[in-house]
Amino acid sequence: MLDTLNEVLKQRRHAAAEDSYVASLHHKGLNKILEKIGEEATETVLAAKDAEHGGEAERQALISETADLWFHSMVMLSHLGMDHQAVLDELARRVGISGHEEKASRQP
Amino acid sequence: MLDTLNEVLKQRRHAAAEDSYVASLHHKGLNKILEKIGEEATETVLAAKDAEHGGEAERQALISETADLWFHSMVMLSHLGMDHQAVLDELARRVGISGHEEKASRQP
Amino acid sequence: MLDTLNEVLKQRRHAAAEDSYVASLHHKGLNKILEKIGEEATETVLAAKDAEHGGEAERQALISETADLWFHSMVMLSHLGMDHQAVLDELARRVGISGHEEKASRQP
Amino acid sequence: MLDTLNEVLKQRRHAAAEDSYVASLHHKGLNKILEKIGEEATETVLAAKDAEHGGEAERQALISETADLWFHSMVMLSHLGMDHQAVLDELARRVGISGHEEKASRQP
Repeated sequence: MLDTLNEVLKQRRHAAAEDSYVASLHHKGLNKILEKIGEEATETVLAAKDAEHGGEAERQALISETADLWFHSMVMLSHLGMDHQAVLDELARRVGISGHEEKASRQP
Repeated sequence: MLDTLNEVLKQRRHAAAEDSYVASLHHKGLNKILEKIGEEATETVLAAKDAEHGGEAERQALISETADLWFHSMVMLSHLGMDHQAVLDELARRVGISGHEEKASRQP
Repeated sequence: MLDTLNEVLKQRRHAAAEDSYVASLHHKGLNKILEKIGEEATETVLAAKDAEHGGEAERQALISETADLWFHSMVMLSHLGMDHQAVLDELARRVGISGHEEKASRQP
Repeated sequence: MLDTLNEVLKQRRHAAAEDSYVASLHHKGLNKILEKIGEEATETVLAAKDAEHGGEAERQALISETADLWFHSMVMLSHLGMDHQAVLDELARRVGISGHEEKASRQP
């Protein structure tokens, strides 16, 4: 899924800014992308507080805010010529499995 | 990879707090987990500013901070009885592919 | 100055939401005010990074973002029935002077 | 009060790092100071959520976190050779009073 999203992000980077939210973020530059990460992190924190004692709507809102946070993280990496695979490899390293091996293992 | 990490997070939640960073976060409660998300978001923003004009060390630091941010996001979801699959489904929905379909397509 | 600002904030809280930014924030509720604090904190951090190696424009931008951060902090306190004087008293306590005494000392 | 705090911050900047928290922050550099602003902003947001439905302890905790946020903002300004007076002037400009005039008016 993140591989697919990354391909979409790469394609949309070079779309016309008026046609694509992703292209407009790249056009506005790194500071604007990082402002979005700060915003979405705060919105995730608030949504988690509300989800703790909330119902299904609050839980869905937290999923949506976390998706926003991860999405803008991927736009940031893409803006700087990096991608999520290095992040997954780092996470894999921490839990003691190789991300490259893990990825290979799920190929048909 | 995120599935594997999620399994590890679930196992470690119930480890002794003194043996596991994850168990100690759950033990301290939601506010402490959310403080970490705020911290890691700020450290990601700072690392991205430094990576923009930096070299390989600054780029690796950004990967590491982004991994911290995603890691603590997953601990937050786990604390509230949710997981990353709902986040990936939401991301898939936004780019017009079904996350469940996508996951099925990569099974052997 | 903060006393004067606080009086203005109290008056504007009950203005019509369409006439006053402060009234519209109170009307939208605590989460919206706290989102602004998260946003302005991130913008302050970014402005400080740019001011470090920047010129007068970047320095003025940092002043403006810090003012935004403090302004929205005061709106938050006002929303919850508190004000900046308690914050100043706490700061005074930390540096070993009494805020109430200090305030008294500058009355005519 | 903020004038007094600013004098204290200036004196402590050049204290031995092992004797003074402020000196140790300056010694660690701008990124560390900005990390603290991000941390304290998140802690303020969490404390405000808890104060909304909490009692006196939660309200006092919010005052303490807001004081932390303002304190580290002042250390940041000091690190970059600026101070709170420019921030107060900017706030005064926004509410239509002159900060310099206001300051003059409360001199004996």
